[in-house]
Amino acid sequence: MPPLLEGERIDYVTEGLEIIQSKDVFAFSIDAVLLAKFTYVPITKGSIIDLCSGNGIIPLVLSTRSSVPITGIEIQPRLVDMARRSVQYNHLDGRLTFIEGDIREKNIIEKAGKADLVTCNPPYFATPGKKQWNNNPYFTMARHERNGTLNDMTAAAASLVKQKGKVSMVLRPERLPELMEVYRKHDLEPKRLKFVHPKAGKEANIVLLEAIKGGKPGLTCLPSLIVYNEDGKYTEEFQDYYAGN
Amino acid sequence: MPPLLEGERIDYVTEGLEIIQSKDVFAFSIDAVLLAKFTYVPITKGSIIDLCSGNGIIPLVLSTRSSVPITGIEIQPRLVDMARRSVQYNHLDGRLTFIEGDIREKNIIEKAGKADLVTCNPPYFATPGKKQWNNNPYFTMARHERNGTLNDMTAAAASLVKQKGKVSMVLRPERLPELMEVYRKHDLEPKRLKFVHPKAGKEANIVLLEAIKGGKPGLTCLPSLIVYNEDGKYTEEFQDYYAGN
Repeated sequence: MPPLLEGERIDYVTEGLEIIQSKDVFAFSIDAVLLAKFTYVPITKGSIIDLCSGNGIIPLVLSTRSSVPITGIEIQPRLVDMARRSVQYNHLDGRLTFIEGDIREKNIIEKAGKADLVTCNPPYFATPGKKQWNNNPYFTMARHERNGTLNDMTAAAASLVKQKGKVSMVLRPERLPELMEVYRKHDLEPKRLKFVHPKAGKEANIVLLEAIKGGKPGLTCLPSLIVYNEDGKYTEEFQDYYAGN
Repeated sequence: MPPLLEGERIDYVTEGLEIIQSKDVFAFSIDAVLLAKFTYVPITKGSIIDLCSGNGIIPLVLSTRSSVPITGIEIQPRLVDMARRSVQYNHLDGRLTFIEGDIREKNIIEKAGKADLVTCNPPYFATPGKKQWNNNPYFTMARHERNGTLNDMTAAAASLVKQKGKVSMVLRPERLPELMEVYRKHDLEPKRLKFVHPKAGKEANIVLLEAIKGGKPGLTCLPSLIVYNEDGKYTEEFQDYYAGN
């Protein structure tokens, strides 16, 4: 078993997967798991790249759906280290690789190569000034556009994906118009959309959007997913989606 | 009672409203009623303009929610005539006015003035060639972009709405990325979105989208509406939405 650093713990994810995380540094959210469940995946041929990979939650979950090589790119060394140890812990060595680097740099894009699918759970908040950043620098980088904007992430995704390959992201619905605009600017045509609502009758708080590089216009809007029942327990539908394939 | 022309009939809409229509010329769809229910309305002050007004279904339904003057613009004289007779039939003379004209023409835009809300149920299909037009010329104009594209309709809506006023449209979800792009191109910021699904677990077949002219980014994605139960009857939720206020 790989060593745990101070403050780290091992949390159960889904389908036998466990992940190393720390409440002081980074803990995955259900958004990342939902993205890994929502997206199209190449099953046996091709490759996958995950941007803003954090502690590797998306590559880990994708590994339950696909046997192709998966590369995660993450700018924070502390998180790359956690991700690599989680790979060992889950005996996924050789299938999952992590690159430490900034996706705004050309050499990182070249190093990663071209993929059939690029996933990304980008920082959610387009924070203009330092005042609104979190006191915790790890959180700031994960949640705010400290190390690149949505446009930077999308540009990187568009460079990394093959023609007719897929790009899937998860974001707050507030920014959906911006996401669609930025996708199309980089020749990523939105093809599949799914909203996630915390409860029935509540506004969506997560949107999942998959595009095809160089695809023809025509968006499919899937049934919404409801997370909690009125009694505060996960809905059966959510449990199936989260745990299922 | 205004005279009915050959092939015309009077159909019940909702809340005591009746409308003149004809299966050979134009019959409203639930999409129009849903738009009239979904949209913000100025209640007592200001004015409303409805583009691509058809037989006047949207102005008629809006009249149950607002007491401000409502102007419908429609290019087909036959439909304007039906709409005007429906206004008489519902005793709404003086509150609802119809202009016969092409919203791509400057004098029509000037004649209509400026409104607090502009609604539009545009033709759904961006048909490139004449081959795909319907044999029935009335249907062709209502369903295909024979008399203006989505961009033309949105440009007209943006010209007709006051700064910080609202624009609401209904469209097929397939074209949502295009709609958002064209809204933003004309300084209409998408603010409220609602999907309508024919049944639970089915893809959306209607999207309702409201924008604010010169608004700040930030989209609210409302709970989806499901039209039919498994047994093929309208859901309670749909009945409330359709009939309610």
